[in-house]
Amino acid sequence: MEIAAGQHGGFDVLGIGNAIVDVVAYAEDAFLEELGLVKGAMTLVDEERCEFLYRRMGPAHEVSGGSCANTMAALAALGGRAAYVGRVRDDQLGQVFGHDIRAAGVTFRSLPSRDGPSTARCLVFVTPDAQRTMATYLGACVELGPEDIDPELVRAAEITYLEGYLWDRPEAKAACRKAAEICHGAGRKLALTLSDAFCVERWREEFRELVAREVDILFANEAEITSLYEVGSFDEALQEVRRHVHFAALTRGPKGSVVVRGEELHVIDAVAPERLLDTTGAGDLYAAGFLRGLAAGLDLGACGRLGSLCAAEIIGQYGARAERPLQPLFARVHGGVAAGS
Amino acid sequence: MEIAAGQHGGFDVLGIGNAIVDVVAYAEDAFLEELGLVKGAMTLVDEERCEFLYRRMGPAHEVSGGSCANTMAALAALGGRAAYVGRVRDDQLGQVFGHDIRAAGVTFRSLPSRDGPSTARCLVFVTPDAQRTMATYLGACVELGPEDIDPELVRAAEITYLEGYLWDRPEAKAACRKAAEICHGAGRKLALTLSDAFCVERWREEFRELVAREVDILFANEAEITSLYEVGSFDEALQEVRRHVHFAALTRGPKGSVVVRGEELHVIDAVAPERLLDTTGAGDLYAAGFLRGLAAGLDLGACGRLGSLCAAEIIGQYGARAERPLQPLFARVHGGVAAGS
Repeated sequence: MEIAAGQHGGFDVLGIGNAIVDVVAYAEDAFLEELGLVKGAMTLVDEERCEFLYRRMGPAHEVSGGSCANTMAALAALGGRAAYVGRVRDDQLGQVFGHDIRAAGVTFRSLPSRDGPSTARCLVFVTPDAQRTMATYLGACVELGPEDIDPELVRAAEITYLEGYLWDRPEAKAACRKAAEICHGAGRKLALTLSDAFCVERWREEFRELVAREVDILFANEAEITSLYEVGSFDEALQEVRRHVHFAALTRGPKGSVVVRGEELHVIDAVAPERLLDTTGAGDLYAAGFLRGLAAGLDLGACGRLGSLCAAEIIGQYGARAERPLQPLFARVHGGVAAGS
Repeated sequence: MEIAAGQHGGFDVLGIGNAIVDVVAYAEDAFLEELGLVKGAMTLVDEERCEFLYRRMGPAHEVSGGSCANTMAALAALGGRAAYVGRVRDDQLGQVFGHDIRAAGVTFRSLPSRDGPSTARCLVFVTPDAQRTMATYLGACVELGPEDIDPELVRAAEITYLEGYLWDRPEAKAACRKAAEICHGAGRKLALTLSDAFCVERWREEFRELVAREVDILFANEAEITSLYEVGSFDEALQEVRRHVHFAALTRGPKGSVVVRGEELHVIDAVAPERLLDTTGAGDLYAAGFLRGLAAGLDLGACGRLGSLCAAEIIGQYGARAERPLQPLFARVHGGVAAGS
């Protein structure tokens, strides 16, 4: 399971996900209620509803997003070797998405659509309690399909990392199935993030089967993992995970995270942020730190600590792409390990 | 000189400026040197140079900008009645600009160009010392001209606020001349911000004449005002200001600000930010706070304090549009005045 960085001249992780530009704005709770938005959740909306919500949204800023893309951008910013597959259109927001992920150091070769829906947008409403509520218009993401999966790219990556959100579109799901098959055929590892508790509700049976049979590394938060196994508490979910999953990293917000691998179990504290502004991207950045640790051959506790540090960094700012360099966080954990060993 | 809010059923301030979307990214000092960018300054670039710089720029986020537009957005967020004139194109970034300024509560009726250059972009490179270095591609802004000035709008505003950057384009300068004439003809006040020390160098003689003859309220920072009068120190500049300008608000970064009105002189402390990340917009937000104070009839010291509070808020985040509500800052100063009076 250890990832030997550099050994294959390829990538530590290939991410496949919905390529989205986030539109982030502050909002009061009353505003969410008025518009019928489910607080804390990601809701899919059509273009008309997206425009309706945008007209009512406060002053915003735009930042490249997409859960899996956030993880790949942060992985690269931490010094990891990352690649990404996702679909944008050849419009201004598509250019922004492509620029940002490449500028982060991620290999991104997916060609933009030249017609059809515009680049996907996710309206992110951040409430005073730092929670985020999302409305996503998938736009050009719906064009992602099996033909976007380059077998060579999958074979060149130690881990292929999928986001659960992809299950919402049959063609994207087929792309994931194809990637999983190539990945396992090449003796690589498959990772999955469950993305969102409502997404788990939509695809529970498929996710359970996938997790039991194909997923080598599972990422989930407390709401997602309890929804997956339909249990009432994190402890019950943990028992299910230990029976069904070989390797899982489970995040619990301010309660930290728990990493399970076979008989090993690590309980990891959360890191307090400088200030708490916006929880968007906490899970994405935890996964990035964790995967970077794995690629560097750190022990599981150190992987989890790096995940926690990255999560703390991102919740101290608006949006899920780090405004400050992440490399010092890696140096902190890696240096600590080196000094301690 | 006091601004009686609500008296005319119009606006406290009409701003005229370059309508720009900022592209904000972290950068090391060595990167600026390598690309030949003048640290701390705003440089005008053509589209090709802008694209060259963007390709080399790190992961960024997009946020509506434009110095004067930033001031109007913040003025409205503080509860002031603001209007804005500026030119974008009908592209995605133009939509973003229009959405953000309207969502902030600013009246913005300028029609977007339907052809010609794309919406203006300003690449903002933020160095570890929180300084910002800007490269601006004016794009659709070059289409702004006298025909964009609606006389009724100018007459409906207590103050018309111009940015010095407009002098860089002859047509925009002509728009300013037209607005100034209507403004004075209607017995309103004209305000000017000097924008940038290099901009002052380009237009020193015109600015001196304008300031002496037409400007009722001048905003400038230390570098700009010493450049205007070609003197070596702030104190010398202050003597010149007192001879030539009836009313000026001069900002000095961490040293605070000085407000001069006739015989009155107020020295105002800076407010320490929660954390210092990016000085972009400090002057724009100071002006917003100051103008909001004037509109509310606050004394000059309170106007300056509100300016300082707004500046402190904006330098604790990336970009020049506030991510958190500004109204509490107004309540703090206004409440303080009410309680003390």
